[in-house]
Amino acid sequence: MVMTITMIRAAAARLAGHVRRTPLLWAPGLDAIAGRRVWVKAEALQLTGSFKARGGWAAVSALPPEVRARGVIAYSSGNHAQGVAMAARAHGCPAVIIMPADAPRAKVEGTQALGAEVVLYDRAREDRDALGARLAGERRLTLIRPYDDHTVIAGQGTCGLEIAQQAAAEGVCNADVLVCCGGGGLTAGIALALEADAPGLRARPVEPAGFDDAGRSLAAGRILRNAAMSGSVCDAILTPQPGALTFPVMARLCGPGIAVSDAEALRAMAAAFRHLRLVLEPGGAVALAAALWHPETIAGDAVIVVASGGNVDAATFARAIAST
Amino acid sequence: MVMTITMIRAAAARLAGHVRRTPLLWAPGLDAIAGRRVWVKAEALQLTGSFKARGGWAAVSALPPEVRARGVIAYSSGNHAQGVAMAARAHGCPAVIIMPADAPRAKVEGTQALGAEVVLYDRAREDRDALGARLAGERRLTLIRPYDDHTVIAGQGTCGLEIAQQAAAEGVCNADVLVCCGGGGLTAGIALALEADAPGLRARPVEPAGFDDAGRSLAAGRILRNAAMSGSVCDAILTPQPGALTFPVMARLCGPGIAVSDAEALRAMAAAFRHLRLVLEPGGAVALAAALWHPETIAGDAVIVVASGGNVDAATFARAIAST
Repeated sequence: MVMTITMIRAAAARLAGHVRRTPLLWAPGLDAIAGRRVWVKAEALQLTGSFKARGGWAAVSALPPEVRARGVIAYSSGNHAQGVAMAARAHGCPAVIIMPADAPRAKVEGTQALGAEVVLYDRAREDRDALGARLAGERRLTLIRPYDDHTVIAGQGTCGLEIAQQAAAEGVCNADVLVCCGGGGLTAGIALALEADAPGLRARPVEPAGFDDAGRSLAAGRILRNAAMSGSVCDAILTPQPGALTFPVMARLCGPGIAVSDAEALRAMAAAFRHLRLVLEPGGAVALAAALWHPETIAGDAVIVVASGGNVDAATFARAIAST
Repeated sequence: MVMTITMIRAAAARLAGHVRRTPLLWAPGLDAIAGRRVWVKAEALQLTGSFKARGGWAAVSALPPEVRARGVIAYSSGNHAQGVAMAARAHGCPAVIIMPADAPRAKVEGTQALGAEVVLYDRAREDRDALGARLAGERRLTLIRPYDDHTVIAGQGTCGLEIAQQAAAEGVCNADVLVCCGGGGLTAGIALALEADAPGLRARPVEPAGFDDAGRSLAAGRILRNAAMSGSVCDAILTPQPGALTFPVMARLCGPGIAVSDAEALRAMAAAFRHLRLVLEPGGAVALAAALWHPETIAGDAVIVVASGGNVDAATFARAIAST
């Protein structure tokens, strides 16, 4: 099955009234750092604190009622978890979420507060896919993958539909759209939406240095894996490799990837705190970090960044903003 | 001159496209604490980080061009400062801002970054009104008062027009609207807007305990002063007494005031960080604090709070969220 804009528009219709249309913000202090206008799509203000509410709702709402009633299962470092948990609760079905034991406490508690059953696993020693498959089989739950799922990608793509509309309203017709990238669901979904509704806007993945599998895969023309699975503060976007569904979309539509350091991600969190009064988590700040600290890799007098999430523990946030 | 809704609508027309229409947010985690739906008007996301951008723009844009060209002056702990500075820069006129020497660094630097000349004074020993009058006379600057000014009140009232529209869109017709209150410009402006456009919504001032001049004045039916002028972390809303223009409006339209402790304001900042991913300053969090920690003083199944500003130093913010 090839992903089409029709699937994204269908997801948008299901999401209407259930997820938030997030604002497109800007601040003179950010523009001064970047040397161009920086538009920030504030998905941290989304319900559950990240864009994952879109894909979670899109997937759960698309299930046949008798399948959905048995329940859903997801594996996630925390944002997809909360998106699926929120959608499941709203649809009155059980949700089991498999989370790494080292996930930020805010994410574990946020998921539990949404009524989901949380199962913790060891990120270094256990295979979350195998664990998910076993639990799904035992309980006849439907597994909702975090990115390699057409319906989830379509849900994330609704963020791109909004960007196309909001950018047009601001007169922005040609610009790079920098997207925080893990498995590529958000990046691919936005790229598809922009292809249809804003062909002058170009999605580009942004990742932590050392975990830039999407950027390296785009450059190589084939899927490459990361060498490590931990070691960055950007917990939300540490994935082994681009998805089988997301990579072909990114390869066809995206511009070159950008990698940023953990320190740059933390500095971008401080900039968002100070100039936008917006809370970002490290993985949700890498796109802003690229706009602020790597302006030479971007062309044009405006750039759009997706600030994809804001679920961060107080200690990490305090560390990030201490430099301001 | 009696304030009318016509003045607020005229201000809204001048502000269109220059200040942000801020979102009305909610989160299940806040509702769970408060025991009712809590709608948060996120003025911390306003340009300059507080609602003061509204009043500043309304006042500067209303000046005759030849008067405006000579420049404007304002005294402010930092938020009105930035609102006036932004408007002055956009209109191409000089701005002199008189700020207390103990104002948060983020506010002093934010004001300077907007191109204003900052003059610091000693909050305990100097009279900012006298200082402002002297500088205004020497340089023929127009003094823009922070709240006791019809045009400024009208500008802040545009926030109330938006609340009326946004609440109606959410089906909220009867509710208290809790407003962080210093001199009463925002509270009075919102009260006037609601009287016209949402008569089932009732504005109520919220203040720091010990600095609850508006609430005590409303209860007494006459203007009362605070005993002290410093000693609360809520720097933005420490004013000596309700304004001569704002008090009659509040007395006619507002419900009873609510006072919250500094500790409650800090806990509300932590709640906004965690549940809304929104940065609030202490004085901008007192209304949310009232909704969360004083639910018994509020009736109905929904409450609207104005989160009026988010200009806070990193150290204060880190202290506030450390309890989460």
